[in-house]
Amino acid sequence: MPLPTALTQRLGISHPIIQAPMAGGSDTPALVAAVGEAGGLGTVGAAYLAPAQILDAAKSVREKTRRPFGINLFSPLPAPTPPKDYTAAIAQLASYFADLGLPAPTPPGPPAYSFDDQMAAVLESGATVFSFAFASVPAATLAAAKARGMTVIGTATTVEEAVALEKLGVDAVAAQGSEAGGHRGSFAQPFEDAMIGTMALVPQTVDAVRVPVIAAGGIMDGRGIAAAFALGASAVQMGTAFLTCDEAGPPEAHKQAILNAREHETRITRAFSGRPARGIVNRVMTDLADAEIPEFPLQNALTRPMRTAAGKAGKADYLSLWAGQGLRMARRQKAGDLVQKLVKETEEALGRLG
Amino acid sequence: MPLPTALTQRLGISHPIIQAPMAGGSDTPALVAAVGEAGGLGTVGAAYLAPAQILDAAKSVREKTRRPFGINLFSPLPAPTPPKDYTAAIAQLASYFADLGLPAPTPPGPPAYSFDDQMAAVLESGATVFSFAFASVPAATLAAAKARGMTVIGTATTVEEAVALEKLGVDAVAAQGSEAGGHRGSFAQPFEDAMIGTMALVPQTVDAVRVPVIAAGGIMDGRGIAAAFALGASAVQMGTAFLTCDEAGPPEAHKQAILNAREHETRITRAFSGRPARGIVNRVMTDLADAEIPEFPLQNALTRPMRTAAGKAGKADYLSLWAGQGLRMARRQKAGDLVQKLVKETEEALGRLG
Repeated sequence: MPLPTALTQRLGISHPIIQAPMAGGSDTPALVAAVGEAGGLGTVGAAYLAPAQILDAAKSVREKTRRPFGINLFSPLPAPTPPKDYTAAIAQLASYFADLGLPAPTPPGPPAYSFDDQMAAVLESGATVFSFAFASVPAATLAAAKARGMTVIGTATTVEEAVALEKLGVDAVAAQGSEAGGHRGSFAQPFEDAMIGTMALVPQTVDAVRVPVIAAGGIMDGRGIAAAFALGASAVQMGTAFLTCDEAGPPEAHKQAILNAREHETRITRAFSGRPARGIVNRVMTDLADAEIPEFPLQNALTRPMRTAAGKAGKADYLSLWAGQGLRMARRQKAGDLVQKLVKETEEALGRLG
Repeated sequence: MPLPTALTQRLGISHPIIQAPMAGGSDTPALVAAVGEAGGLGTVGAAYLAPAQILDAAKSVREKTRRPFGINLFSPLPAPTPPKDYTAAIAQLASYFADLGLPAPTPPGPPAYSFDDQMAAVLESGATVFSFAFASVPAATLAAAKARGMTVIGTATTVEEAVALEKLGVDAVAAQGSEAGGHRGSFAQPFEDAMIGTMALVPQTVDAVRVPVIAAGGIMDGRGIAAAFALGASAVQMGTAFLTCDEAGPPEAHKQAILNAREHETRITRAFSGRPARGIVNRVMTDLADAEIPEFPLQNALTRPMRTAAGKAGKADYLSLWAGQGLRMARRQKAGDLVQKLVKETEEALGRLG
């Protein structure tokens, strides 16, 4: 890759390729370590992990590689307002649970751990990068991460969000274009206003902040990486491209759905978690398109048994099939091979432009 | 520009930069000619022009330049189903008309000319490129344009639309990403399914068709042009970037709105024409966000007096402020200067990548 940047040097990686945090078990320690070994930066999506699980995952990564890696959390959000009663929210999921042989879902209890508990584990984890999505983090969190020598990356879906993150003091901004799979990182604007395509978002963000910009959304191969650099990005963050890798942990039905879907078959949904996220349209997304959905993370807790059982049963209709709009370019392979291919393809794309 | 392509050679232009058709008087003959003189390809958006007006516009272009230029039409659509009565459609526009000192709108009459009438003028116009949006055109239309030696360009918003256009026999496909301003060109998929970001749409389209792909949507400067080429495009099509040029014809209030808006302030609306199009959010778009709107082109005819009067009165709240998501990058200048700047910026962007 002919493009070492100040950011890759700071991160201590060879290639400006970051495996996006995917949470929910998709970014296994094996995947994170394989990306790191190949010269990119792997990320543990720890949003749904308890502190002890975060430490376990980090230990498992460190046993597999001495290369740098990151951990990602969802920023602390205001406590959700639970529905007056859960009857309707449970009723609209009941048939899926029954179909999977599960008892009806039950109202979620209080969270077992806080963001601060998770963050304490991140600081102890040995990760060299802390990234976050959905909002700002407290200044004390940022200071603590920096005191550990960690590089801090925030997620922006608009220029104003990027500017706010820079003011907060992040070391880099991941600019998440509307093509991206999984949860929208929006916080300063309602997500509906913040569906800016990567081609438009990245250069406008680069113009507005001094920190390095990491391009995310729709980047699946070396052509996309070269394009991101042309737009002024200092690195790329790729989720869907890594999701179909051998080491990635989503259910096989999720990988198959990505490999078989077309670019226009994803939509933004709140059905699975209560927050907007891009996935391949399936029965749950279609059924609940206009439904009232409990706020995040209440809906996420409600649907978890369904998603877990559906993964085991191979029933894609009940899975959150997170995927970005570049999915026709998804490939099945080892993550290290993917990183090497991406480097080669990027060089080829740049060579064609030369 | 170090990137002559088979497409630019075929089009007889020096730079792979196409000024997007914008119709409604924005792409004046002066703009089209200035782009051509600078080595790009200008396009007359003739969708709303009567056959005689098409011939007049083309003559005016030819008087200003001997360079190639294109003409764009909206493909023939099935006749719209008029509302049972227009009371509600008129009522929801009444206060705007009153505010502008206009009599209430009246139900539109039958169209004064057909697509075939327009196409006959296009064939006589001296344009060397015929482009279209919204659907396929009849095979006879395509054959007639080709018999004249014209290059035919269709508009796709999904891979399947691009494949359908290639089968029809177009010479190139304009892949319109979700960032693009103005009307969505969707036809094979409902537009809601076809909001694919340029970063994802272009490479997937390039992989699926053999004809050259023209990237459109969110491209505003040389960084975007270099990125489009990295993705495999053979040229770019830019609308918003040309809309604020001196020679462009939109009302000054429209130009000002583009120069002052932020990237997250556009949305897709049917309010002005009956077909989905991206514009800067204003009073009409907000008021009619959930309204029932007569089909295209009925609503377009209903709102025309309002848009015309609002343009003269400088009232942006009643204008269709078409714009793409790259609008923070919009600049005020002569179109020829813009083309020269784009070439220089593209070379610089490619140089940084080298």
